[in-house]
Amino acid sequence: MRKFVVGVMGGGDNISPENLALAYQLGALIAKEGWVLLNGGRPAGVTEASAKGAKDNDGLTVGISPDSSSQGTSSYIDIVIVTGMGDGRNYLNVLSSDIIVALPGKAGTISEIALALKSRKKVILLNFNTGKLFDFYRVNGFLKSAETAEEAILLIKGGTR
Amino acid sequence: MRKFVVGVMGGGDNISPENLALAYQLGALIAKEGWVLLNGGRPAGVTEASAKGAKDNDGLTVGISPDSSSQGTSSYIDIVIVTGMGDGRNYLNVLSSDIIVALPGKAGTISEIALALKSRKKVILLNFNTGKLFDFYRVNGFLKSAETAEEAILLIKGGTR
Amino acid sequence: MRKFVVGVMGGGDNISPENLALAYQLGALIAKEGWVLLNGGRPAGVTEASAKGAKDNDGLTVGISPDSSSQGTSSYIDIVIVTGMGDGRNYLNVLSSDIIVALPGKAGTISEIALALKSRKKVILLNFNTGKLFDFYRVNGFLKSAETAEEAILLIKGGTR
Amino acid sequence: MRKFVVGVMGGGDNISPENLALAYQLGALIAKEGWVLLNGGRPAGVTEASAKGAKDNDGLTVGISPDSSSQGTSSYIDIVIVTGMGDGRNYLNVLSSDIIVALPGKAGTISEIALALKSRKKVILLNFNTGKLFDFYRVNGFLKSAETAEEAILLIKGGTR
Repeated sequence: MRKFVVGVMGGGDNISPENLALAYQLGALIAKEGWVLLNGGRPAGVTEASAKGAKDNDGLTVGISPDSSSQGTSSYIDIVIVTGMGDGRNYLNVLSSDIIVALPGKAGTISEIALALKSRKKVILLNFNTGKLFDFYRVNGFLKSAETAEEAILLIKGGTR
Repeated sequence: MRKFVVGVMGGGDNISPENLALAYQLGALIAKEGWVLLNGGRPAGVTEASAKGAKDNDGLTVGISPDSSSQGTSSYIDIVIVTGMGDGRNYLNVLSSDIIVALPGKAGTISEIALALKSRKKVILLNFNTGKLFDFYRVNGFLKSAETAEEAILLIKGGTR
Repeated sequence: MRKFVVGVMGGGDNISPENLALAYQLGALIAKEGWVLLNGGRPAGVTEASAKGAKDNDGLTVGISPDSSSQGTSSYIDIVIVTGMGDGRNYLNVLSSDIIVALPGKAGTISEIALALKSRKKVILLNFNTGKLFDFYRVNGFLKSAETAEEAILLIKGGTR
Repeated sequence: MRKFVVGVMGGGDNISPENLALAYQLGALIAKEGWVLLNGGRPAGVTEASAKGAKDNDGLTVGISPDSSSQGTSSYIDIVIVTGMGDGRNYLNVLSSDIIVALPGKAGTISEIALALKSRKKVILLNFNTGKLFDFYRVNGFLKSAETAEEAILLIKGGTR
């Protein structure tokens, strides 16, 4: 039976303890809902923390790896999609997610937000202020903001199901 | 915990009842081993039959779709990786599989066998005679042949784990 | 002999006459320098205008198409790279360019700026204010801004050659 | 003005002097016709020889590189499309060619022949016997064979223009 997939994006380096905790909580709540957590598979930052949150709560995790083998992927990932495409796989991250939650990150995360909005996917910014750049998509309802993991879960439920 | 992934490739059109039964049995046995079945997600031929075999036995199925949405994917697929890459996704099918089993097919299936061998993945041909074209890879042990689904499972166990 | 490739990115729809003129001038100047103009191949907006500017000045143009055939590509494109990858080709646009100039656009253009900066490519914003979102990359010299096509050409010369 | 693009595929390693000469001649004749030669950009085997043949005759060459930078590409390539996709770029090689000529090679070359036929592109095998595997496509006219570079050129002219 088709599973509901939530993509969790965010930075890999220099992530604050606050945002790591937020990522962990989000992963935990996604697992408790019975949803699949999808991310880019890196063993670092938001990706690692959210995957650990999901696995600590018996969730199922999918990582879409930029590498050409699964070896460098986070140990909290159950199923690795190996693309060998580098950051070209960011597009697959967003297409494969029913909805995307983005925590703070740099250019990689911003590229995923932009590709998601371009593909008419809904994006929830979690504790992430992207300024006015994407305001066009806020007006038409594709972009929303949350302050807590619980609030993000409510937006997922309200926005797409 | 990282799951073991078996890629099942094969034709979509004009597949004989014998090969459809073989695909179903293979999917069933993969599920019974607790492995993940990965394929291209199409609701037809070898892909559909093997996914149904897995789901009838409580297996987990992943389909890597060529389309830009999950809508046309087989209903026996649990997790759809949406690539929007057309047959370019064939490369991801093979990279994401720990080992590949190929049933009879035409150019699409042959491209997957070739890409797998190029990427140094092991390939098991199931009731599929590809002539002498890939003999180079038979010599170095990357290509093997099986006549039955049970035999394919034994080769998977012997060949990679 | 390896040619120098300038990627020109920007929106397809609702582009102001001012920005279309800027795109045309930029394409013309790139051609006069003997550089190759690379874009996404669409017959619209910044892409079409810059390609026309290049062709009117005997330039060579390459378009990396999201489609699976070359048929819908701008007639000002000499060589079409057909990817069948949808917006996944945005990543190829930036990797294949020695430097990127971005005119105003929405999520597609922003995804290209972000992917370029992630890949450590230099980006020149031409008459495009992206707010503070990419300030991190302005500090380390990967992101610069120009007001005129001539200024962009000077930055290309100064920044990379 | 849209240029006509001939894709030249074939092995990188252990290519016989006979086939290297054939690749060189083919590249030379493609250039003399005013066509663009497209290949995978590697500085070896059929790719390097055919690109040199084209450049020695003032042709234009495009290489679609599997790497994430243009640095390792053959020096006989004018324009490098950098994909960062590994052998996933084989699909782009065939989609971007109006017609494909394949000289002897192993799994990489066979994957390109298969992907081309799957995409309904015409393929000319040059001094390459692939056995009966692709006979289905010979019957419907998508696959032909040539013994000499001149014969391949005639088939290109007859088959597609």
